Amino acid sequence: MQITLRVIGIGPGNPRQITLEAIDALGDVDAFLVLDKGGDKKSLSAVRRDILTRYGRPGHRVIEVVDPPRNRDPADYDAEVRRWHAARASIFTDVLTTEVPDGGVAALLVWGDPALYDSTLRIVDDLAEHSGLSIDVEVVPGVTSASALTAAHRIAANRIGEPVHITTGRRLGDTPHGADTNQIVMLDGTLAFRQIADPDDHIWWGAYVGTDDQILISGRVADVAEQIVAARAEARERIGWIMDIYLLRKG
Amino acid sequence: MQITLRVIGIGPGNPRQITLEAIDALGDVDAFLVLDKGGDKKSLSAVRRDILTRYGRPGHRVIEVVDPPRNRDPADYDAEVRRWHAARASIFTDVLTTEVPDGGVAALLVWGDPALYDSTLRIVDDLAEHSGLSIDVEVVPGVTSASALTAAHRIAANRIGEPVHITTGRRLGDTPHGADTNQIVMLDGTLAFRQIADPDDHIWWGAYVGTDDQILISGRVADVAEQIVAARAEARERIGWIMDIYLLRKG
Repeated sequence: MQITLRVIGIGPGNPRQITLEAIDALGDVDAFLVLDKGGDKKSLSAVRRDILTRYGRPGHRVIEVVDPPRNRDPADYDAEVRRWHAARASIFTDVLTTEVPDGGVAALLVWGDPALYDSTLRIVDDLAEHSGLSIDVEVVPGVTSASALTAAHRIAANRIGEPVHITTGRRLGDTPHGADTNQIVMLDGTLAFRQIADPDDHIWWGAYVGTDDQILISGRVADVAEQIVAARAEARERIGWIMDIYLLRKG
Repeated sequence: MQITLRVIGIGPGNPRQITLEAIDALGDVDAFLVLDKGGDKKSLSAVRRDILTRYGRPGHRVIEVVDPPRNRDPADYDAEVRRWHAARASIFTDVLTTEVPDGGVAALLVWGDPALYDSTLRIVDDLAEHSGLSIDVEVVPGVTSASALTAAHRIAANRIGEPVHITTGRRLGDTPHGADTNQIVMLDGTLAFRQIADPDDHIWWGAYVGTDDQILISGRVADVAEQIVAARAEARERIGWIMDIYLLRKG
């Protein structure tokens, strides 16, 4: 059995930030696979449903795939990871075999761009390796949340010729001196810049960027850190979840 | 006089890699400003003309703005830069005053995303500061060439949790150890990785990514470096210009 497995970047949350290429790519999909990771965000899911209704072909199916249970603290870590990958590949293989005709197309949607801090391509590679199916992988790029952030603040990520370092809150403290001129920080639930940035660094922070809920705060770290903490806590409480990102720049 | 000056990312070269938001943003522009930097690429310009014809409103104008001459080796560098910025702002101000009605919209198109290694936002900021007009800046994000590259190679830019460093060929040698795990290198006319990468590093190179002319080469640096050099030279000769980018990863 031969199928096409398509990973489609749909942009960071604003439904108009999808590309024509992504819309084309949505149009001949037989089955959309939705990974249920538990804490999925309700309003984001509504945007995704709306995209499928609008651009999916008539008769397309949406199939929720539940990740198999995983032991996060096993005696033999590697063996457990292999077992879990095989279990997940087996679930996907069952779904694909049942829901997608030979020669058909299955797709997974990815917020932002599939290249940055997203596990979908790893899952797809696992599947191509372990499923026993003949899988042709296609990837459609999307607008990243980093681009949406800088656009919302109307700034470039770098000054002339400077590098841009993209990292996570957890790794922010590991960025070597000299690579930290412009840092875009994703997945930072603890706002790690408060421990790591200099008071004179400049920060451009954004939450729900590009959507109606967008919040933007920028300024000298020492001046706006507490304002960001408060806005983040308030928004998370009010909306029920938060998606935020920031650019940190040395003075 | 009050005008909106809109900077619109149109993606890295494939006309389908434009977003709906960018198409919306093109639709009410009075005048598109095109910066003539001398060596503009013919086929890229054709794509841009096609985009304006397709999505611009009837009656929109396209105005070529020629950069004023600049002394690159002046006795007083700062004074010359100030003089040159003022001269350019004056040219733009004349164009905007003549071609855009009060309350109207002017726009500049940017390949890829306006946030990465592009001077348009700097020009716009200059203009907002020096023109004496009341300018409202808007920025529309686009798909970056970095995302198009990794999508074409069907890979993520980073392995789990790793940072991604974006830099230029000229600065590649300055990336500190520890920040060089995954590097996306832009604007590298000399293929600097040949001097700087380890033979065992992996490279994913692409030219004209996302277009009909796309060329992709990937592998161990020691194995594919000469193949990339040859492909780049051949394509540049055949097509007349080249736009390429690569991801370099430590083993």
